[in-house]
Amino acid sequence: KSYSGSYDAPPVVHYYLNNLTTSSEPIKNREKVLLLTPLARFYDEYWANLVKLNYPHDLIELGFIVPKTREGNAALVKLEEAVRKVQTGKKKDRFSGVTIIRQDFDTPVAQSEKDRHALAAQKARRAAMSRARNSLLYTTLGTDTAWVMWLDADIVETPPTLIQDLAKHDRAVIVPNCFQRYAENGVKKVRPYDFNSWHESNDALDMAAKMGRDEIILEGYKEMATWRSLMAYERQEGQSIHTETTLDGVGGTALLVKAEVHRDGAMFPPFAFYNLIETEGFAKMAKRLGHQPYGLPNYLVYHYNE
Amino acid sequence: KSYSGSYDAPPVVHYYLNNLTTSSEPIKNREKVLLLTPLARFYDEYWANLVKLNYPHDLIELGFIVPKTREGNAALVKLEEAVRKVQTGKKKDRFSGVTIIRQDFDTPVAQSEKDRHALAAQKARRAAMSRARNSLLYTTLGTDTAWVMWLDADIVETPPTLIQDLAKHDRAVIVPNCFQRYAENGVKKVRPYDFNSWHESNDALDMAAKMGRDEIILEGYKEMATWRSLMAYERQEGQSIHTETTLDGVGGTALLVKAEVHRDGAMFPPFAFYNLIETEGFAKMAKRLGHQPYGLPNYLVYHYNE
Ligand SMILES: Nc1nc2c(ncn2[C@@H]2O[C@H](COP(=O)(O)OP(=O)(O)O)[C@@H](O)[C@H]2O)c(=O)[nH]1
Ligand SMILES: Nc1nc2c(ncn2[C@@H]2O[C@H](COP(=O)(O)OP(=O)(O)O)[C@@H](O)[C@H]2O)c(=O)[nH]1
Ligand SMILES: [Mn+2]
Ligand SMILES: [Mn+2]
Repeated sequence: KSYSGSYDAPPVVHYYLNNLTTSSEPIKNREKVLLLTPLARFYDEYWANLVKLNYPHDLIELGFIVPKTREGNAALVKLEEAVRKVQTGKKKDRFSGVTIIRQDFDTPVAQSEKDRHALAAQKARRAAMSRARNSLLYTTLGTDTAWVMWLDADIVETPPTLIQDLAKHDRAVIVPNCFQRYAENGVKKVRPYDFNSWHESNDALDMAAKMGRDEIILEGYKEMATWRSLMAYERQEGQSIHTETTLDGVGGTALLVKAEVHRDGAMFPPFAFYNLIETEGFAKMAKRLGHQPYGLPNYLVYHYNE
Repeated sequence: KSYSGSYDAPPVVHYYLNNLTTSSEPIKNREKVLLLTPLARFYDEYWANLVKLNYPHDLIELGFIVPKTREGNAALVKLEEAVRKVQTGKKKDRFSGVTIIRQDFDTPVAQSEKDRHALAAQKARRAAMSRARNSLLYTTLGTDTAWVMWLDADIVETPPTLIQDLAKHDRAVIVPNCFQRYAENGVKKVRPYDFNSWHESNDALDMAAKMGRDEIILEGYKEMATWRSLMAYERQEGQSIHTETTLDGVGGTALLVKAEVHRDGAMFPPFAFYNLIETEGFAKMAKRLGHQPYGLPNYLVYHYNE
């Protein structure tokens, strides 16, 4: 029973019974989704893909967090215009609510892909990303939120059934495989992009055991050969998109989480947690809370190609 | 600029600039306070004390989380009645908003003080308390929240100026000293109650070093001699209530936190974090985020005497 008592004069008393469901049939059960995007740049393709998602928009609330940088300010202007258009457009396209937050802390590093991915910059960058994700999460999560869909601002192509396809597996934490389209001598190809969804390896565990508690392990750097098997390399063309695999680390490009996992406390650690940070640290927290993360190696979503 | 655009038909677009302040003069700067209480039992004395707090009530939003137990249900009925009375009573007493949440998970242990404090029960109990605190925090924290005042449901006596007195120190995390009134042969006395506010000790650090990552250290148990110096024993009668001390662990009976510390991700770990859990784990997270917790040994608040 959800009662929102309204007295004549004083402020509303919200009184929620949070026995809401998160099921494999979220649309039938009218389960609310909070779709959250940290947004440093605005891509028209991201927005077009978002509006094409056919999970009922009246069940989707949008949340954005934008950095206080020149680039962030530019992205903010475009975002506001796009929001205004959809929220005053066709009724079925309108989302149940939109929250836009401007970060009150800075991101330390430059934004070109090469610089972003330099090893040294990564720890500071992902700590800042963690704080951005947590600020957005803590301030938008509601008592009636059933699912939290994390979608990066540069994911430009997904099936329109993304949310219900992932929710169908009814897992506490689940990620698709994030690839990137590119062309080689005029031939259209795809390649893996997000390497943060992986299965733990003994090598990586040994590495962690020798590290200081505050040091972090990062994927994709030859200086840190983790020998973890990465979901990015487990994709088998033509196989079922609903093939599952258990994971120990997850990426944040596209990530569906049952709201109670976050409500219990699983967040994106801005510091080393079991020598992991941000989305990989989040996966470890979810596991410490008794939840097993899953991945869909053959279910592809696409990252922008800079 | 805080703009809450209202189009005729579609849902409101919330667009917050969160450059809000948390200063040593919160009333002058109209800083909003979120007062959060995990509530298993309803004490009239707690409520009377709460209503007597003279921080402007239109700047205070209340949040409660109640367990789904027989005892919790009974407390819920009394809480609702008390809320109804104050929210329809004198204008200046009314709070800016009230959220009441019923937990969707169980608390494992009995509620008598003796059982609660048995060592074995403590880990499960404090993990459940962490999840309750996090669920309440994540769902009520707003973009415009400046301070989060944690106050246990059995804190029955504080100065009416509690919030502004603590905020005056302008610290990221600050706790008063939680004592208990009792009588001995008809003589009124006081004694320490909350032992979770402490200064780290080398003994405790050595103990942690030998422990498994998932084990936790708890204060006040002879089986675990931590030799930490406890703020509970640093109270000096007649000395200034604003005397400060730095802390490494904090209790949750009364705890004031700057909202950005939570928004950055500091929460109450329901699992061992540096072998610490719940409020003590929170203090460690705040430190990992670069914040130094403080305590006021001579500033007393009182816990109910069962
Ligand atoms: N709020 C916020 N979002 C950011 C910041 N930096 C990147 N982002 C967003 O966070 C997501 C991941 O960042 P990105 O640079 O694409 O990481 P990469 O794809 O791993 O190189 C994208 O949606 C970015 O738009 C930041 O400093 N603040
Ligand atoms: N929501 C919720 N609150 C609880 C639960 N158990 C205790 N509380 C509240 O949490 C606070 C601390 O619990 P309490 O039993 O007083 O701990 P102690 O004083 O350390 O023995 C009090 O405000 C209790 O009312 C629970 O299972 N769920
Ligand atoms: Mn990206
Ligand atoms: Mn108590």
